[in-house]
Amino acid sequence: MSQVEFKGYAALDGQSWGGLKVIDIKPKTWKETDVEITITHCGRVARVCGSDVHTITEGWGKVPFPLVVGHEIVGKVTRVGSEVKDLKVGDRAGVGALIGGCYSCRACRSDNENYCPRSVLTYADRYPDGMVTQGGYASAIRAHEQFVFPIPDGVESRDAASMLCGGLTIYSPLKRNGAGPGKKVGIVGIGGIGHYGILFGKAMGAEVYAFTHDESKVEDIKKMGADHGDFAKPLARTLDLIISTRDVAEGMPLQQYLSMLWVHGKFITVGLPDGPLPQLSAFDLNPNGCFLGGSRVGSKREAAEMLGLAAEKGIRPWIEEMPMREAAQAIQRLKRNDVRYRFVLTQDLV
Amino acid sequence: MSQVEFKGYAALDGQSWGGLKVIDIKPKTWKETDVEITITHCGRVARVCGSDVHTITEGWGKVPFPLVVGHEIVGKVTRVGSEVKDLKVGDRAGVGALIGGCYSCRACRSDNENYCPRSVLTYADRYPDGMVTQGGYASAIRAHEQFVFPIPDGVESRDAASMLCGGLTIYSPLKRNGAGPGKKVGIVGIGGIGHYGILFGKAMGAEVYAFTHDESKVEDIKKMGADHGDFAKPLARTLDLIISTRDVAEGMPLQQYLSMLWVHGKFITVGLPDGPLPQLSAFDLNPNGCFLGGSRVGSKREAAEMLGLAAEKGIRPWIEEMPMREAAQAIQRLKRNDVRYRFVLTQDLV
Repeated sequence: MSQVEFKGYAALDGQSWGGLKVIDIKPKTWKETDVEITITHCGRVARVCGSDVHTITEGWGKVPFPLVVGHEIVGKVTRVGSEVKDLKVGDRAGVGALIGGCYSCRACRSDNENYCPRSVLTYADRYPDGMVTQGGYASAIRAHEQFVFPIPDGVESRDAASMLCGGLTIYSPLKRNGAGPGKKVGIVGIGGIGHYGILFGKAMGAEVYAFTHDESKVEDIKKMGADHGDFAKPLARTLDLIISTRDVAEGMPLQQYLSMLWVHGKFITVGLPDGPLPQLSAFDLNPNGCFLGGSRVGSKREAAEMLGLAAEKGIRPWIEEMPMREAAQAIQRLKRNDVRYRFVLTQDLV
Repeated sequence: MSQVEFKGYAALDGQSWGGLKVIDIKPKTWKETDVEITITHCGRVARVCGSDVHTITEGWGKVPFPLVVGHEIVGKVTRVGSEVKDLKVGDRAGVGALIGGCYSCRACRSDNENYCPRSVLTYADRYPDGMVTQGGYASAIRAHEQFVFPIPDGVESRDAASMLCGGLTIYSPLKRNGAGPGKKVGIVGIGGIGHYGILFGKAMGAEVYAFTHDESKVEDIKKMGADHGDFAKPLARTLDLIISTRDVAEGMPLQQYLSMLWVHGKFITVGLPDGPLPQLSAFDLNPNGCFLGGSRVGSKREAAEMLGLAAEKGIRPWIEEMPMREAAQAIQRLKRNDVRYRFVLTQDLV
């Protein structure tokens, strides 16, 4: 039986940002493959144009309010089902942007569960039985072990939290596309995800080029370890991989970025702008045989690799901590782009 | 000294298709790395929307007429420079869509000379010294050995000709993107290049899906060996690679093709439509982490592999032969899309 109380800071409707209220949460129907985590930290506060608020106000109008958001969740395991293999009570563990899948399709069977077409989002989504998912601005969460990531010693919980979506979202395409020694990697947009691009890209041994229009970030970028953060002249046919975290497509010089790629280099957008990407012609792709692609968070196996790398290399994200009850202030500051580079909310409900 | 006469069937201006005239040609300035070929066959007749006529009438207005086109050239080596390594007089050899590069850049040094930014096209282009390149509806051609492909025993000259651009253009992306046993490959557009996609894809061991809107080609597609040529229901997340030979972007169901790709699958356009590709959103790329890419002919090393495969597997393209003097008729028939699947013009000047 569950020993923990499930309650969370909920938005009461799509317009109530700034006025979160504590509510009781009904967790998913228990299965013996599940794990319960008593939450200590949750990153990823709602953003105006990001997935949190966006999710509520536009794509998911039918999800019933009140709704608890937040999906970079870390805490302590307080219950495990009899079929759970790699977690036990007392372990530190976390949950990222996804909390369920079908566990049987080709994607799920090949460490690509993040590409399962029946993926369940950590909040504002529904399980097959109709249960609404509630996120991590909460006391606790219950999830299938496939979507619960063990946190290794050597990574503090406060640091691990924002790795589980922001970090993993850029670690996965870096890893899957060969970022490492001898490779030149560009990171476009240096926010919460982009700053992880610099940190992980360097830790993997790549040469990292950071692209930002925000002059005030140039010093930070150097401190994060980027090799190049200031671009006087265009880089023709130089980079092996560019990952864009931009979530605004308008004005993105996509053709110019593509021309910076070495033969068969890839430009991958992990940012998900609402609007269409700049229109391309085959002549933008043909001179260097380059690729434009997408990516979707990462797998549990990759989360373990990422956290292992963070422990080994002592990677510390740039975060600002606040108690959960101040989520509304964090949201307001994020609206003004006033964060360097990720908020992590700490537990104050229990 | 050159023993061969250089003459060819030339267009006198951008409007003179149908009225080609025999002219004398001035070959490139001789270098000891050059090879001369006495031409026996030339594929790739001019097409209204394809690279030949297109080149002349639009992109290259400053190229002086008269101009000899054609760039799938096969013949016999009749002269080699003292520095030529892998060809000798009497060998059969050919030239594809490219005839020059810089021979020193990163692309040229890594068997990617087809991506050299200083590539010289086989006709209607200029060498660095200003000499205009003239194509293969001609008695002979002179070229740097890097762009002269030896033709192995086991591949007839008539069959080799159209492999050197049409074949290589689809062989290269098939090879570079892992087409082989256990892989599912889609070919969009079954014309000269697309029919090679089926032949080579099958020869490499892949399962081949052929996409055409031309009902009259379905029987041919089966004979070419495609495993699937008739699509009742959509193929979601199935294909590892799709190569599109379409040179019209309008109406291309690009999003639908992308949704057919397995995780990290690639859609590569080797067709070069004048107009822009259908506009994409990041949400078209994110569900399966797929890629949209380009490709540009292939390298000399790949041409050797391709011809070796053709010899080993006995691959015969579907071609129709005509004497060079009938080029005008071939052009007219190609305008009406009346060719299955490639014309090869045979020598009648010498």
